[in-house]
Amino acid sequence: MPLTDAPLDELVVYRPDVQAPPDFDAFWERTLTEARAAGGPVEAERVTDRHLLRTVEVADVRFPGFGGDPVAAWLLRPRDSDGPLPVVVTYLGYSCGRGLPTEHLLWSAAGYAQLVVDSRGQGHDTPDRVAGGGTQWAKGFMTRGIDSPDDYYYRRLVTDCVRAVDAVPHLPGLDPERVVVAGGSQGGGLTIAVAGLARDRVAAALPDVPFLCHFRRGAEMAGEGPYVEIAEYLRWHSRHRVEPAFTTLSYFDGVCFAQRATAPALFSVGLMDPICPPSTVYAAFNHYAGGDRTMTVWPFADHGGGHGSNPVTQLEWLRDRALTP
Amino acid sequence: MPLTDAPLDELVVYRPDVQAPPDFDAFWERTLTEARAAGGPVEAERVTDRHLLRTVEVADVRFPGFGGDPVAAWLLRPRDSDGPLPVVVTYLGYSCGRGLPTEHLLWSAAGYAQLVVDSRGQGHDTPDRVAGGGTQWAKGFMTRGIDSPDDYYYRRLVTDCVRAVDAVPHLPGLDPERVVVAGGSQGGGLTIAVAGLARDRVAAALPDVPFLCHFRRGAEMAGEGPYVEIAEYLRWHSRHRVEPAFTTLSYFDGVCFAQRATAPALFSVGLMDPICPPSTVYAAFNHYAGGDRTMTVWPFADHGGGHGSNPVTQLEWLRDRALTP
Amino acid sequence: MPLTDAPLDELVVYRPDVQAPPDFDAFWERTLTEARAAGGPVEAERVTDRHLLRTVEVADVRFPGFGGDPVAAWLLRPRDSDGPLPVVVTYLGYSCGRGLPTEHLLWSAAGYAQLVVDSRGQGHDTPDRVAGGGTQWAKGFMTRGIDSPDDYYYRRLVTDCVRAVDAVPHLPGLDPERVVVAGGSQGGGLTIAVAGLARDRVAAALPDVPFLCHFRRGAEMAGEGPYVEIAEYLRWHSRHRVEPAFTTLSYFDGVCFAQRATAPALFSVGLMDPICPPSTVYAAFNHYAGGDRTMTVWPFADHGGGHGSNPVTQLEWLRDRALTP
Amino acid sequence: MPLTDAPLDELVVYRPDVQAPPDFDAFWERTLTEARAAGGPVEAERVTDRHLLRTVEVADVRFPGFGGDPVAAWLLRPRDSDGPLPVVVTYLGYSCGRGLPTEHLLWSAAGYAQLVVDSRGQGHDTPDRVAGGGTQWAKGFMTRGIDSPDDYYYRRLVTDCVRAVDAVPHLPGLDPERVVVAGGSQGGGLTIAVAGLARDRVAAALPDVPFLCHFRRGAEMAGEGPYVEIAEYLRWHSRHRVEPAFTTLSYFDGVCFAQRATAPALFSVGLMDPICPPSTVYAAFNHYAGGDRTMTVWPFADHGGGHGSNPVTQLEWLRDRALTP
Amino acid sequence: MPLTDAPLDELVVYRPDVQAPPDFDAFWERTLTEARAAGGPVEAERVTDRHLLRTVEVADVRFPGFGGDPVAAWLLRPRDSDGPLPVVVTYLGYSCGRGLPTEHLLWSAAGYAQLVVDSRGQGHDTPDRVAGGGTQWAKGFMTRGIDSPDDYYYRRLVTDCVRAVDAVPHLPGLDPERVVVAGGSQGGGLTIAVAGLARDRVAAALPDVPFLCHFRRGAEMAGEGPYVEIAEYLRWHSRHRVEPAFTTLSYFDGVCFAQRATAPALFSVGLMDPICPPSTVYAAFNHYAGGDRTMTVWPFADHGGGHGSNPVTQLEWLRDRALTP
Amino acid sequence: MPLTDAPLDELVVYRPDVQAPPDFDAFWERTLTEARAAGGPVEAERVTDRHLLRTVEVADVRFPGFGGDPVAAWLLRPRDSDGPLPVVVTYLGYSCGRGLPTEHLLWSAAGYAQLVVDSRGQGHDTPDRVAGGGTQWAKGFMTRGIDSPDDYYYRRLVTDCVRAVDAVPHLPGLDPERVVVAGGSQGGGLTIAVAGLARDRVAAALPDVPFLCHFRRGAEMAGEGPYVEIAEYLRWHSRHRVEPAFTTLSYFDGVCFAQRATAPALFSVGLMDPICPPSTVYAAFNHYAGGDRTMTVWPFADHGGGHGSNPVTQLEWLRDRALTP
Repeated sequence: MPLTDAPLDELVVYRPDVQAPPDFDAFWERTLTEARAAGGPVEAERVTDRHLLRTVEVADVRFPGFGGDPVAAWLLRPRDSDGPLPVVVTYLGYSCGRGLPTEHLLWSAAGYAQLVVDSRGQGHDTPDRVAGGGTQWAKGFMTRGIDSPDDYYYRRLVTDCVRAVDAVPHLPGLDPERVVVAGGSQGGGLTIAVAGLARDRVAAALPDVPFLCHFRRGAEMAGEGPYVEIAEYLRWHSRHRVEPAFTTLSYFDGVCFAQRATAPALFSVGLMDPICPPSTVYAAFNHYAGGDRTMTVWPFADHGGGHGSNPVTQLEWLRDRALTP
Repeated sequence: MPLTDAPLDELVVYRPDVQAPPDFDAFWERTLTEARAAGGPVEAERVTDRHLLRTVEVADVRFPGFGGDPVAAWLLRPRDSDGPLPVVVTYLGYSCGRGLPTEHLLWSAAGYAQLVVDSRGQGHDTPDRVAGGGTQWAKGFMTRGIDSPDDYYYRRLVTDCVRAVDAVPHLPGLDPERVVVAGGSQGGGLTIAVAGLARDRVAAALPDVPFLCHFRRGAEMAGEGPYVEIAEYLRWHSRHRVEPAFTTLSYFDGVCFAQRATAPALFSVGLMDPICPPSTVYAAFNHYAGGDRTMTVWPFADHGGGHGSNPVTQLEWLRDRALTP
Repeated sequence: MPLTDAPLDELVVYRPDVQAPPDFDAFWERTLTEARAAGGPVEAERVTDRHLLRTVEVADVRFPGFGGDPVAAWLLRPRDSDGPLPVVVTYLGYSCGRGLPTEHLLWSAAGYAQLVVDSRGQGHDTPDRVAGGGTQWAKGFMTRGIDSPDDYYYRRLVTDCVRAVDAVPHLPGLDPERVVVAGGSQGGGLTIAVAGLARDRVAAALPDVPFLCHFRRGAEMAGEGPYVEIAEYLRWHSRHRVEPAFTTLSYFDGVCFAQRATAPALFSVGLMDPICPPSTVYAAFNHYAGGDRTMTVWPFADHGGGHGSNPVTQLEWLRDRALTP
Repeated sequence: MPLTDAPLDELVVYRPDVQAPPDFDAFWERTLTEARAAGGPVEAERVTDRHLLRTVEVADVRFPGFGGDPVAAWLLRPRDSDGPLPVVVTYLGYSCGRGLPTEHLLWSAAGYAQLVVDSRGQGHDTPDRVAGGGTQWAKGFMTRGIDSPDDYYYRRLVTDCVRAVDAVPHLPGLDPERVVVAGGSQGGGLTIAVAGLARDRVAAALPDVPFLCHFRRGAEMAGEGPYVEIAEYLRWHSRHRVEPAFTTLSYFDGVCFAQRATAPALFSVGLMDPICPPSTVYAAFNHYAGGDRTMTVWPFADHGGGHGSNPVTQLEWLRDRALTP
Repeated sequence: MPLTDAPLDELVVYRPDVQAPPDFDAFWERTLTEARAAGGPVEAERVTDRHLLRTVEVADVRFPGFGGDPVAAWLLRPRDSDGPLPVVVTYLGYSCGRGLPTEHLLWSAAGYAQLVVDSRGQGHDTPDRVAGGGTQWAKGFMTRGIDSPDDYYYRRLVTDCVRAVDAVPHLPGLDPERVVVAGGSQGGGLTIAVAGLARDRVAAALPDVPFLCHFRRGAEMAGEGPYVEIAEYLRWHSRHRVEPAFTTLSYFDGVCFAQRATAPALFSVGLMDPICPPSTVYAAFNHYAGGDRTMTVWPFADHGGGHGSNPVTQLEWLRDRALTP
Repeated sequence: MPLTDAPLDELVVYRPDVQAPPDFDAFWERTLTEARAAGGPVEAERVTDRHLLRTVEVADVRFPGFGGDPVAAWLLRPRDSDGPLPVVVTYLGYSCGRGLPTEHLLWSAAGYAQLVVDSRGQGHDTPDRVAGGGTQWAKGFMTRGIDSPDDYYYRRLVTDCVRAVDAVPHLPGLDPERVVVAGGSQGGGLTIAVAGLARDRVAAALPDVPFLCHFRRGAEMAGEGPYVEIAEYLRWHSRHRVEPAFTTLSYFDGVCFAQRATAPALFSVGLMDPICPPSTVYAAFNHYAGGDRTMTVWPFADHGGGHGSNPVTQLEWLRDRALTP
């Protein structure tokens, strides 16, 4: 696998002209206001014993998301921790649900609380109840409801992710002043979105090899992965739908969220990533509004990014910013 | 591509022990009764000129399907035909919507009327409004609602297909005594389903390289195509869901529909088909209850079956049974 | 599949320096003169009933091609049409013969006559009797006779295609003043060739995702499809044959034919086409001599171009130019 | 991916005639005696803080392996645990070194100690100093030293794995009466080997989708993975080396180790595994000498086996045998 | 690559019921009689210096083949050899021409003369002038003229190969009593054909991994290579052409030639050969009529067979039969 | 396969800034001095009869390489040659050992002596006894010992190759004044290395499609082949090892050797080579210090380069420089 995009010296200055639609902020304010108005309970059930765990406490959480729908999450905390802990709110990669708590043991081992947020429709525990016409289909979620920003799948998912941050004060033992948002690939795109939409409540953002950034370039450059769903859909619907589709997508573009984000951020990118082409990652990074932003470059990485070395990098970066348990 | 399954001499006697669940007939009677009770209008709008056609009349149809949902269809008839025509009700392959009427010109050119039935959720014009939990996802439709026969996607789609036959008397110029059901791949599976569920109203059935037959063998043998979605889903959910999944699927198995079908039927099969393994096709064929059944064997075909030669075979077979315009 | 070539803003101005050999026009004048001198009958046998068709009349045609060889074609007309009809002379994609008339129902359904011209050697009904040395072989036809323009396969095939237009006045019910040439891929390249060689007798040209344009760039850029045959052949014969091969090919380059064509033309191109790289299509388009030329850009299309939407685009474009039945 | 081997009803009774060479036990007794004679220190350095961990104590271990070579391992224990803990000695998959301790957090989270044993030559921290001729090469380790059992790579690696169990009493806080050996793929093969060679000191064995079993069938049936290295090597060296190679391999065959193992064992197998064909797994399982053996069948799994569900299955199985912290 | 066919114990007794058509011998007697009647010169031009060779003498040969067509060959002999030498007449693999003499240095280095026979149409120097209809095309040569045994490509090529043996007495320094025929893949099939057709003039036959044996099984079992051309052709022409095609092929089946061959023969086979499935090789071998027949089994080989070890095996086998220079 | 790198007009002037480390010459002087000090015998055993050869004399050679290790080689000479012959010292492609002498018959047929040098560890006859830590593994040899120039695999292999030239005067019948070094791919890289390190003893160099040139670009651009091993290794070890790895590699870069070479040289390059991207070949060529340098461009070649035409080109080039037997 050779380099999948421009060489590094071009990437570091790549700052394409991507502009949010005029009503972008109004759209999201309306969306979040409605979701908060829908309300719903935050509930956490202790399930540590069911999973036969000892050093970590696990709760099966439901919090209200878009439309008040109950969204599933795992809450993991080190056993016997006192006082409120910094919490890492984790968003997930494309087509992965939250899985089992035993698949998310890193942050609690490092002393943090972690809230692992399910992606509606992508796993077992959080249905995506499609409203409206919603007939678009091209393998996955990228075109679900693409006819309109109101119906588009990521409107619901991004809202769930913001509402996860809203739920933090209602969960036991967490410090709402120290909320770190994090995730890789789709989870990285969602991390940027939340950093842009809940900017006063996010203490740091850790987007790894983020997806959902500069959709048009993604659709033109990606050789595999979910950007290709957009290209395949438009392959069959080129006649009337290309510009409307990109108009819908512009309400969900990580570049636009980045332009509004302020928290310190640690990005990562793989220069041989065929799924999230490096230029799409740099498009978001170079537009990121927060002054404290760092890019970890993995020069020979594919979409796996830094693999096992990445958490180490993140733990050190957080330590340097005094965001430790 | 070598042979993908057993040699022909074993296939022709392959009649596996596939049994419908005890409440199979009750399930479908309840399902169809409810759908008919939901009712809804049958509407046909002439769109011939919009598509710039001359020798064929085209109508854009909506008829009530599952839950009374409006299901889209194209009705094509030879221009200037008099009297009621035999009608070929066509069901479509997996992930294809009805497309444009200009993609369905064969049957009208041969003098038949044709009703091309959209597949809900798979195209643009017929949304699939997911009720209930419906969170399963594994690329496509095969696992949508698989937790329960009531919620499973194909309950809604098969019902739509039966309701298409119900709509025939309400459309102009068609002869309800001469309804031929037809389709390839998913359309072939749906053809068998309708032949089993609407047996007194189907004059002939033309399932080509049918999908949706003997799901367990399909999931174990198929190298590509939608049976693989089932295998991939169960790969991740092997721990608790294998038998429940096959229980749900048993309500939709073409073998069980075939055991109830009575209309004359012309099947086709490709012996090098990696998507619908020949043994799954023979499983349905060898269980088919109707006395007049024929298998067209394409010995070197992949899932394309007889390609352009297939319609010729079908036209001749219908002519030999006096089912001509 | 990402973009396979330059971005669109570079393509629209891509006009490479491709020049016809000095004796290009003489070569073709000699070639066509000889073919016409060879003569031969134009024959059409009605086969409508054999194919069980009702709304369309089908004739199995033979007309004289290169060397007077009988070339097969299907003639399809709407039944009961009066008066001479505009006729779409259709050339076929690489390695496809004319198939069955039931595979060519669009134009007659729209009221046009259609003449579907077989490609010699590529199907069943029109042999390519190789004269001379003709020993080159690299999977297909691209290198057959490449040692000399006189022996090259496409000399015979292009001549057949021009002779198809010559045959129009000798077939019943066609209007020689309204001959539209059309085809996709190889058929698109042949369309441009005929538009350049029979320019006073072509009313319009419809080349879709045309092949046979700017061979050197095609051989250097195409990742799959028949341009690759040239690269593979030259891989083995680099030592002495590269320039001679491109010299032969220069007599058959769509760019050179385009430089001579005058009829209104509607091209199409897919920007993710790995078989006919978009720059080769634009090379021909930007050199096209006719003043009324339009490019339909399918921005996410592979070699399928506009699929089912393409005929709609063509019918509307012809209607706007009053080329209707 | 269809089934990669025989159907399940044949697998459960598949017990091929695989016999250890006559001097198998003598070979291993000599090998282990020599390794123990070589001796060497067991050392453990606390590195918890370097990895920024909180709930788990991590030590960087070196213990003496084959030839007294220092072999690297991670020792992970729950922080603040009292008393000796049951310890899971984990062997690794092919071509993976021990990586970082943050990649091995499951067992300590469940209250166990875990010793993660590096595979010499496959990672960074444990060199494989090749003695003797050792010139065979076919991508990886499968043919390294295959000319003789004494020089074969797995003689050194298996010895390291047994010596890891020998090291347990010398490490702090571990209960040598409750040593569980575990691993997937290559780690599964090594687990069986240790269960056969250190049978009085192994309390339980957890081989997942084990490799290194019934080499001949593996080399004949595997479509990918390291068995293929054997086939590729013998493809080039068929003339003189086939039987000698299998003679060498017979000293390392999991079937022969299984015939000597006595500890309770929980195997797992994926019926669509192209890397470790199910019949090779069943060959070892059906020869396993211990009376308490269980097979977890993942019917649609590839080499990933039960993925995240597998640890749950193992924790429950150990709990049922009172092997809990 | 796992085993591609039945296990070895089934192969060694695999002797399918393949029968030559009743007029097989008459067909070939007529064919060869006509070719010999067409006559033509045998010419050899010394080109040693042009190829800058020193230890070997090279002549560029033309001999009369089918229809008297001049067929190219290289004649290589050790320099300064005295007396007539045993000669290895070599036939070539599919789609390879004779190339350069520098690619054929083995046999002369071992002291033999070698005549390397070009395959008409497959290289540069021997055109295949197609007579008759000859329109079938499916990538290569397998379907060229398949409508009739008289027109089929291999009628011409096999005849050329027999005529190469006829030419031996007319070339300098060769011993017509010691003609060895040899070749791999297509060359192996041709070797068997010549051994069956010129049985009194062949001293030994060396078919390696032979192609052109038991066509129907080849077309059903081969995953790649030229047997697949037959399957692909019949995929498109299943309706009327399957049995006629196999009837044509039966005149060229290596099994039928083997039933007539008498010379000592050394076959080879690769049990992981996806191009020439081992059962097709054993079909010919087990029908081979000569009493002195040996099979070299390369148990892990793909279509490469024994690679560099194969000539060694052949030289030793010839030495044991006193067929040495 | 399209062009894999820049177009030719950019390549011919591509001369990247690649600089040898300051102690490059000292490193190699020390290395070679030590190897020569280790000494060891040069032995040649006649094995002509064992291989049943007649026109060529073959000796099985051992000469002392790195550390005095015995390195295997074949020496082939035309039988009955008088006087000392020019000798072609041939280095081999990646992962190929010297094989059998019957695979190396070209140069002796042209009258030259040839010494075919085994690659330690890559074949059967020359073990690579790994000293030091040497734990890096990523499929092959590219990362073996990459932690330090002293331990790196190619230090040993390059030294062997220089020592092969040292051995020439000790072998019978060779002319040490006419030593030609040659090889393709890895052998091409080694050819350049020897031309740079033994420049007064090399009469000509023939590097074909050379590997081991401009490692960083190779690792960034190659789509397949051994450069990819470097990228894969750095994919997993990006955190700390990227720059150290390239520092080690800089001691073995063909560009640096080329900067020191003086012998006349004939390079070759394939412009569609995905294994050794053309720019890496031109990087070495454009830095080559010798004044008489020629590039054979195979414009459509993949890594096969000029195939059978290449030796012809080389023989003619040597003849033009009076380097003939």
